[in-house]
Amino acid sequence: MDSIKSYIEANQSRFFEELFGLLRIPSISSSSENKQDMYRAAEYWTKLLLAAGADKAEIFETAGNPVVYGEKIIDKNKPTVLVYGHMDVMPVDPIELWNTVPFEPVIKDGKIWGRGADDDKGQSFMHAKAFEYMVRNNMLTTNVKFLIEGEEEIGSPNLEAWCEQNKELLTADIVLVSDTSMIARDVPSITTGLRGLAYWQVEVTGPNKDLHSGLFGGAVANPINELCKLMANLVDENGHITIPGFYDDVMTVSDAERAKLAKAPFNEENYKNALGIKALKGEKGFSTTERTGIRPTLDLCGIWGGFTGEGAKTVIPSKAFAKVSVRLVPNQNWTKIAKMFEDYMQSIVPDYITVKVNTLHGGQGYVCPIDLPAYQAAEKAFLKVYGKEPVPFRSGGSIGVISVFENVLNTKSILMGFGLGSDAIHSPNENYPLEQFFNGIETLVWFYQYFGGAQV
Amino acid sequence: MDSIKSYIEANQSRFFEELFGLLRIPSISSSSENKQDMYRAAEYWTKLLLAAGADKAEIFETAGNPVVYGEKIIDKNKPTVLVYGHMDVMPVDPIELWNTVPFEPVIKDGKIWGRGADDDKGQSFMHAKAFEYMVRNNMLTTNVKFLIEGEEEIGSPNLEAWCEQNKELLTADIVLVSDTSMIARDVPSITTGLRGLAYWQVEVTGPNKDLHSGLFGGAVANPINELCKLMANLVDENGHITIPGFYDDVMTVSDAERAKLAKAPFNEENYKNALGIKALKGEKGFSTTERTGIRPTLDLCGIWGGFTGEGAKTVIPSKAFAKVSVRLVPNQNWTKIAKMFEDYMQSIVPDYITVKVNTLHGGQGYVCPIDLPAYQAAEKAFLKVYGKEPVPFRSGGSIGVISVFENVLNTKSILMGFGLGSDAIHSPNENYPLEQFFNGIETLVWFYQYFGGAQV
Repeated sequence: MDSIKSYIEANQSRFFEELFGLLRIPSISSSSENKQDMYRAAEYWTKLLLAAGADKAEIFETAGNPVVYGEKIIDKNKPTVLVYGHMDVMPVDPIELWNTVPFEPVIKDGKIWGRGADDDKGQSFMHAKAFEYMVRNNMLTTNVKFLIEGEEEIGSPNLEAWCEQNKELLTADIVLVSDTSMIARDVPSITTGLRGLAYWQVEVTGPNKDLHSGLFGGAVANPINELCKLMANLVDENGHITIPGFYDDVMTVSDAERAKLAKAPFNEENYKNALGIKALKGEKGFSTTERTGIRPTLDLCGIWGGFTGEGAKTVIPSKAFAKVSVRLVPNQNWTKIAKMFEDYMQSIVPDYITVKVNTLHGGQGYVCPIDLPAYQAAEKAFLKVYGKEPVPFRSGGSIGVISVFENVLNTKSILMGFGLGSDAIHSPNENYPLEQFFNGIETLVWFYQYFGGAQV
Repeated sequence: MDSIKSYIEANQSRFFEELFGLLRIPSISSSSENKQDMYRAAEYWTKLLLAAGADKAEIFETAGNPVVYGEKIIDKNKPTVLVYGHMDVMPVDPIELWNTVPFEPVIKDGKIWGRGADDDKGQSFMHAKAFEYMVRNNMLTTNVKFLIEGEEEIGSPNLEAWCEQNKELLTADIVLVSDTSMIARDVPSITTGLRGLAYWQVEVTGPNKDLHSGLFGGAVANPINELCKLMANLVDENGHITIPGFYDDVMTVSDAERAKLAKAPFNEENYKNALGIKALKGEKGFSTTERTGIRPTLDLCGIWGGFTGEGAKTVIPSKAFAKVSVRLVPNQNWTKIAKMFEDYMQSIVPDYITVKVNTLHGGQGYVCPIDLPAYQAAEKAFLKVYGKEPVPFRSGGSIGVISVFENVLNTKSILMGFGLGSDAIHSPNENYPLEQFFNGIETLVWFYQYFGGAQV
């Protein structure tokens, strides 16, 4: 098994060439202009899988962006691993903050720089290469299926329906996913919890046209002022979300489990320094790790209205907008929460404005039990490569499809993520360290060996 | 004097041609890209004035955009009228709401449509034509000076210094301005009060980069949420501005004067219907006319931050911004208020974010006494053309230079505005009714006759 290291070393320039081809495709799922790029990315993935040794790989249409499905079935009696990844990426705004061209990947300072370098093109590509190695060296211990989708960054709105229609095809013992991060470079971890998500666009309308702020200022409600008022009170002084009923289904975490979670290494000074902030802010009575791991939160992801250009235009705009998101914990149902917020907004809107709330997407939270055989195989694989047992960790992020796999396919997922906090996913200057890229491929190979019961 | 009507009728197609040439120049003062257009507009104005009969007309440089100065001196012993207007216009966003091309004027439904049709190209152009008529018919009763500037819509930041340097040139008995509106088509009015203005850009900074809202949501203050909190409380539930000391210098208006102001016609249902709103909102204890006329107000003119594109990107942005303006009443000093707001923001900013406040511009308020001879000449002119004595009216708008004329040139201004509330100035689909355009020219001619003491 030392040969995986040699294999990576011998093939690394080809690996980069192949990955960079994928990174150069601007497959931004939130932008309808990039629809064709998603097909280019899908085409690219089918070629990657076939070249790596898949029996077949094809593009399937969904109601939205396409998905890629590929497989290699070595023995129907052996266990099956379903690898999930996504080929879509986030937008690149604010573009002016990038030090490199987002879709022109480069290697510098031991890292790959570019949109998708980590999330999730870089991480999902590692699976193709681990698979390739095992095929070429006759080391496959399980059947392997690949499902690569194109709508993860917009909440996978069409994947659930597609999974419903293709349950047979997707039958597996475990779903294996690399779309999360480790706690730190030297603190391997496995994500055992994910937060759910609901996301809305709020539109406040005042007068039927933009008005002169001098002639009308003081007489008419200003949609921006009103939007600020509506948004300012969604979270109170103690960090509690004020939507009535919001906490009803939140699963309380036992003191024992909180004590265990508190053991994850966390240095507040380093954390603040890395973010350049003087103080943290969050829900009263909970630690930072708890605030992101076991508690729901509400964030405004965007806001706009009126004059936003250079200089000083005086205007009362007709409309103002906000994008609002909540992260949910297991047992909170996102569709129930989505409705709750819509109703709440309508219940508090004053009569001098109107408010329209569109639910843009959502997903449920997830918890993975640490006694699953697949979890234990993952644990051993990390120990083998990183020399340390990984920490089970509840992430604040959301991967909506994980609950789809649980509910529709009745299959649990193992989240073996190799990202780092410094990878700037969803931000300018996304990057992925080569060390994680290489170690990741190696760790995945070991996972299959332990999970398939090979003599190692 | 009936001949002014005939003159307008005989020359109207030339008037339109000349005005449209001016309207086609996109002289947007808040946009540095349009700097050259301001010079084109200035060039155009010098030609207009010389063609109308000015002795001279030239372009003067200032620290910012140029100004045009022109004059015709008939007799040094006669009174002098200084006509003030501006050749710059507001931006045209949101462009998609225009029914016509903003800088391609058209006549439709008895109105001129286009950016600047009223504010202030259309209104200031009337002065050139009234002047032309009087020159050609030997009817000038006063000396006439023209000052046409290019920075009114950004608060005239360089005009005060330029007036200081050119006091001699600008010596006059009265400043005459058409840059305001009448109460209604059949309710002529003269603006006797203007509000002052202060305008800031507020920048809230949280983390030093955009963050993943799942991984960091709940642990770190979100600049958009925080901006909303800061902005939401600037005006309280009673419509009072909460900046400490803000009302200290507000001049209280006597009950007698409030009673007089209450006589201006105002129909709340019509007002609400025209704006498409169900209810009004403003300072408790004051009528709508008072709220815009004699009371200061605060409006957010713009807000932006985070993801504002199509779809649902989850992010905690590093920064969020707002443009904040206040309208001030006479006796409130805008530089004092500007500092007050800057200090207030710094005093309430929590330690988990930083806030930067830039004062972008400002101007003082103004009051015109109704016993001025020039006011009375204006009153007679309106009565002559509209058949009704005009209502003295305190406008909510701001024309910063009016207080400059008062303080630097020691000269009062008469605000003979012919705009209507439906002209959509500063908004999409700006327009100016032909009726007002023609009546305006005629009324201005009468003003000169009464003010200069001609036998009429």
